[in-house]
Amino acid sequence: MTAQNTPRQDVLNETHHPALQSWLPSAQAAGGDFPIQNLPFAVFRRQGTGEAFRGGVAIGDQIIDLAAVAQAGLLKGAAAAAAQAGAQDKLNALMALGAPAWRALRLALSRALRQGGHPENPVEQAALQACLVPQAEAEYDVPARIGDYTDFYTSIHHATNIGKQFRPDNALLPNYKWVPIGYHGRTSSIGVSGQQFRRPLGQTMPPGASAPSFGPCKRLDIELELGIYVGSGNTLGEALDITDAEDHVFGICLLNDWSARDIQGWEYQPLGPFLAKNFATTVSPWVVTLEALAPYRVAFTRPEGDPQPMAYLDSAANRSGGAFDIQLQVGLQTPQMRADGQADASICRTSYRHAYWTVAQMLTHHTVNGCNLQPGDLLGSGTLSGPTLDQAGALIELTTGGKNPIALPGGEQRTWLEDGDSVVLRGWCEREGAARIGFGECVGTVLPARTLEG
Amino acid sequence: MTAQNTPRQDVLNETHHPALQSWLPSAQAAGGDFPIQNLPFAVFRRQGTGEAFRGGVAIGDQIIDLAAVAQAGLLKGAAAAAAQAGAQDKLNALMALGAPAWRALRLALSRALRQGGHPENPVEQAALQACLVPQAEAEYDVPARIGDYTDFYTSIHHATNIGKQFRPDNALLPNYKWVPIGYHGRTSSIGVSGQQFRRPLGQTMPPGASAPSFGPCKRLDIELELGIYVGSGNTLGEALDITDAEDHVFGICLLNDWSARDIQGWEYQPLGPFLAKNFATTVSPWVVTLEALAPYRVAFTRPEGDPQPMAYLDSAANRSGGAFDIQLQVGLQTPQMRADGQADASICRTSYRHAYWTVAQMLTHHTVNGCNLQPGDLLGSGTLSGPTLDQAGALIELTTGGKNPIALPGGEQRTWLEDGDSVVLRGWCEREGAARIGFGECVGTVLPARTLEG
Repeated sequence: MTAQNTPRQDVLNETHHPALQSWLPSAQAAGGDFPIQNLPFAVFRRQGTGEAFRGGVAIGDQIIDLAAVAQAGLLKGAAAAAAQAGAQDKLNALMALGAPAWRALRLALSRALRQGGHPENPVEQAALQACLVPQAEAEYDVPARIGDYTDFYTSIHHATNIGKQFRPDNALLPNYKWVPIGYHGRTSSIGVSGQQFRRPLGQTMPPGASAPSFGPCKRLDIELELGIYVGSGNTLGEALDITDAEDHVFGICLLNDWSARDIQGWEYQPLGPFLAKNFATTVSPWVVTLEALAPYRVAFTRPEGDPQPMAYLDSAANRSGGAFDIQLQVGLQTPQMRADGQADASICRTSYRHAYWTVAQMLTHHTVNGCNLQPGDLLGSGTLSGPTLDQAGALIELTTGGKNPIALPGGEQRTWLEDGDSVVLRGWCEREGAARIGFGECVGTVLPARTLEG
Repeated sequence: MTAQNTPRQDVLNETHHPALQSWLPSAQAAGGDFPIQNLPFAVFRRQGTGEAFRGGVAIGDQIIDLAAVAQAGLLKGAAAAAAQAGAQDKLNALMALGAPAWRALRLALSRALRQGGHPENPVEQAALQACLVPQAEAEYDVPARIGDYTDFYTSIHHATNIGKQFRPDNALLPNYKWVPIGYHGRTSSIGVSGQQFRRPLGQTMPPGASAPSFGPCKRLDIELELGIYVGSGNTLGEALDITDAEDHVFGICLLNDWSARDIQGWEYQPLGPFLAKNFATTVSPWVVTLEALAPYRVAFTRPEGDPQPMAYLDSAANRSGGAFDIQLQVGLQTPQMRADGQADASICRTSYRHAYWTVAQMLTHHTVNGCNLQPGDLLGSGTLSGPTLDQAGALIELTTGGKNPIALPGGEQRTWLEDGDSVVLRGWCEREGAARIGFGECVGTVLPARTLEG
């Protein structure tokens, strides 16, 4: 990162300190996603009201309403300007202000929320308390107007597992270890957690058939991903440098890239997945900043014998701390489990640390040809499968292409998603000596296919 | 099409009639693109002014300023509402109003512009004349906020030609004759005619090399395409029916899908083209309506022995008139030709009638899985190569993969695009007994690659 934009280490230490406590008791809840060290962003309103959506910051079980903060004039300087930008119905204006603005807002809120306050940011506790909305009363929207959505393919374990099924003789393609593979996805069908979508209809080619069939997808799958929101962008024709690419990242969310494997297998060559993916993509409402994730940076390394990244994809900071140890889990709840009052069952546990390409490498590669990223653009990580089978982030891997169904508590099995199934993605960071940083949940539910007329 | 939305044949006959003449002399210019039978849309402003962009309609060498028309209150009813919507800096609001609104505006302008006027739409000629801006004084913008851009692959000749080069043993894939293949492209780098873009940098794998190289693209290409703007969209989870899919089309433009073939060859498997395409895409400013193109509908037929389209992609109207005979041409002007005062030289002539999939089939297929199209979305046709070599819409075909350079007037040759080259796409419809309908031009120019630092 450039000296100018790098968060000051003393500020990081101040806002991360595990002993830091808020005057809001729920921020100290054991196992809570949103302690004072996190402070992620979303857009929200009170459920069932005609209120405008506006930006908010999570603390404990509450949301700091940025529109209310701006209106009450609680903050000063860059933090006040950031709160004002964050008061809109999407976060694009805040994102466009750039890293110094987000960091100023984070620091000011951290100081205002902590026990005893802070002399440099004197905010009356009662005044800030008046800006809180309980999360239990909130509903959320997709946090940005997403101009373009790009999905990457950064897990070599996923690429290998799925490659074996689509191309048995040619599982991992020769470009994989050199090129952070990505492709453009659909923005119009991206929905926020809680999204319910119809099982897609489409063409498939049954094994051995001489002509395709048409009907509801029979191999409906999930993809466990993280989503990276672009903050400030780059000019068309210019490229980001890997040394400051992360300064263009607003934050990270959970993302479920629902996939129709039978449609995909028939349509995807030669131009890539299309209708197999663009019927729905679900994101979590909360966007966690790289500042909050700083204690969970880990070294980015390549297995012995693998090529090192080309110069434009390599930097000392990327090597020493370009990866993030974000724990990830996929839960599945069937209609039967729901009827029985049973929570979702875990079908996958992994970590983002296993990815073969980092966030900084994704942004840098995306722009190396001059392609312009814009505030609010979303980059998917690709399915984040880890090295072992139980760490696979998609049913196509977990069931070995549908051959080995998953056993669920209560005696049910699943090979592919069935109508009424809900999938819950969760993400969090946790270790000794650091506060837990959570992503909340990303939930989506499969509805029956549209009925065919005629 | 449904009875409700189908343009009334008497209205079509009235606005198409080849004998129809405008009181504006330039609308009668021989070989002109914009007679009274055309009336395409764009967004424009006077060059070099700080004016807001607003919608306009071409007539002869003038533009009818829709903001001025709305302000002056020249139209009534649905046409007035459409002009008001078209007064904004992008056409999305007009597009969202739906086909009845665009048709009402077209009919009202046709009547107001014709010699002697029309008793049902009495508009003072002088009042409308006051709303004209000369095209010579105008500059244009991309006409819509493009939410999503999808590129199809509808020329079987292109798919076969390019397939031979990327996959010699497997040129036309088994899905081609069943699936209207498409993929998502980049919206942020779409520019309007006049776009200048830097030659992209990127990774390529030289033949025989064991590791990729990094540097400026050496195989920079064009793709001659048409772009289809979505007018009214569909709800997520619902699909368009082929019988009324065309009612969701606002109009058609020219589109150049610039392509870096060396980057493409290395990156495109397994998820499709990415950095090879997303550095720039150029569209023409003028959007020609399907109403204007109605006299140039032709039958959509499949070669004997080819499978017929599946039921959801088939209709009587699509078979009898789902294709359009739009003449297309690619011109190339080198810096030397420009210095010599020489116009661009034609390197390709073809027609859209050769496409294997129609506009109605593209929209229907895109939504069959429930994917939602939105007003302003753009669908590319894919490279529109015809059946013979001189009808190929890309250099990779015209030069057989770079093996046979094109000879240009003045003694120059081109295998791939060189720095400073300009490419001009042109489109028009022409036949005995119908007025010429032109698309104007779509021009783009290659700038040298960004200099590598360090």
